[in-house]
Amino acid sequence: MGETGRHRRILGIDPGLQAIGFGCIESDGNDHRFIDGGVITTPASDETPKRLATIYDHLQELLAELKPELVSMEKLFFVRNITSGISVAQAQGVMMLACRQARLPLIEYTPLQIKMAISGYGRATKDQVQIMVQKLLNLSEKPKPDHCADALGAALTLALERG
Amino acid sequence: MGETGRHRRILGIDPGLQAIGFGCIESDGNDHRFIDGGVITTPASDETPKRLATIYDHLQELLAELKPELVSMEKLFFVRNITSGISVAQAQGVMMLACRQARLPLIEYTPLQIKMAISGYGRATKDQVQIMVQKLLNLSEKPKPDHCADALGAALTLALERG
Repeated sequence: MGETGRHRRILGIDPGLQAIGFGCIESDGNDHRFIDGGVITTPASDETPKRLATIYDHLQELLAELKPELVSMEKLFFVRNITSGISVAQAQGVMMLACRQARLPLIEYTPLQIKMAISGYGRATKDQVQIMVQKLLNLSEKPKPDHCADALGAALTLALERG
Repeated sequence: MGETGRHRRILGIDPGLQAIGFGCIESDGNDHRFIDGGVITTPASDETPKRLATIYDHLQELLAELKPELVSMEKLFFVRNITSGISVAQAQGVMMLACRQARLPLIEYTPLQIKMAISGYGRATKDQVQIMVQKLLNLSEKPKPDHCADALGAALTLALERG
């Protein structure tokens, strides 16, 4: 449940090559506050190395701007499409590097772990998880787009698990 | 076949998380010279982000030291073990980033393309490919270890394909 009153800033990341969701919160494990959220995108017309550099540069800027203490990332543990799976893993690699260079602890959670932590139910729909993210963060509406909501879900999972 | 006499320096990379082979050659498309080769390793006891940073730092040093004009990397297009496949792709990501930051063109070749280019035969064994790498580079023995030989094979493929 965490130390009372000690809010830590957590950046959640929903990894991808085309669209990377990010969501920043502050939490003491019980009280959660929304700080910022959005999506980094890279054009499909760029070659992969350039797209990876774009992601790396944007994430470095986000880390410098938002100054999180911890990073939570959705874990890639199974891929349906091997080609897109490889691309997402390559993007994860450069994001892990940026976090490491900023000396930030990075914790990975599977989609199932995130669903369980947020909704208490492993078969929760994406919509149900998003409604819980909205409630936990006292937002007036569901966070948009999906990649941002997923990133906030990853951040909240770390907040709930580690306080 | 390439312009006669214009030797270009090519760095070949055999990607991995635990062991990354590298092999540097100079070639005009017909005449190939061995420059350097070896393996970067990362300890399994380190967490993935730290291992990725180790790979990134070593590759940056290699690029600064060897000053290649082109980079050739074995392409990950199929993985038997999804977990190790994800790790290799994450490592590829940081290597692609380092090449991009150094403004180096990076070309990827599948294992089949490399076999075909080096030995002319898609079902060539690893040993047959290594013997051809040895011959093409006028080495007194087969390049060791395997990861280094594979990296030299990638570099030679680019040399033979683009001259």
